Amino acid sequence: MGRVVVDVMPKPEILDPQGKAVAGALPRLGFAQFISVRQGKRFELEVDGDVTPEVLAAALDAAETVLSNPVIEDVVRVAAVADAATIGSTGAGR
Amino acid sequence: MGRVVVDVMPKPEILDPQGKAVAGALPRLGFAQFISVRQGKRFELEVDGDVTPEVLAAALDAAETVLSNPVIEDVVRVAAVADAATIGSTGAGR
Repeated sequence: MGRVVVDVMPKPEILDPQGKAVAGALPRLGFAQFISVRQGKRFELEVDGDVTPEVLAAALDAAETVLSNPVIEDVVRVAAVADAATIGSTGAGR
Repeated sequence: MGRVVVDVMPKPEILDPQGKAVAGALPRLGFAQFISVRQGKRFELEVDGDVTPEVLAAALDAAETVLSNPVIEDVVRVAAVADAATIGSTGAGR
């Protein structure tokens, strides 16, 4: 079972009220080191079988036509990933 | 200027209506290869300076306490990234 991740972010010139709300909340909650926040979307598409170059091309096509609004959003990543696992509070990024 | 990406996904056992809606739409639009879709959130946190291990630890802390709801969501990725760029329709994933 393959998995493709598609990341979509608001274009830099577009106002991002969700991100602004998070950026406003973080310093109040003790996280003063973050000066700005943008919030976008992450999709995980599952395919029956391996992630071939054809599947990746279809995922990019879907990302640009269905998963994002090209007027206000950019597709920033289309990539095959291993099965999702949670990072614990021990916390190495992956 | 450093940038940390935090990815948050709904837990596998939690119903994801947005993902289900996308999964239902894709086959109708010609993308029959994707059998299931989950939709989560991607945050880009900007820091003034480099992304040190301390910044990553703070980002993980923020991810687990502010950016996600631990009852229904998992933090799946906390990582430093290079400056965001758009992938074009030429389309190599990154």
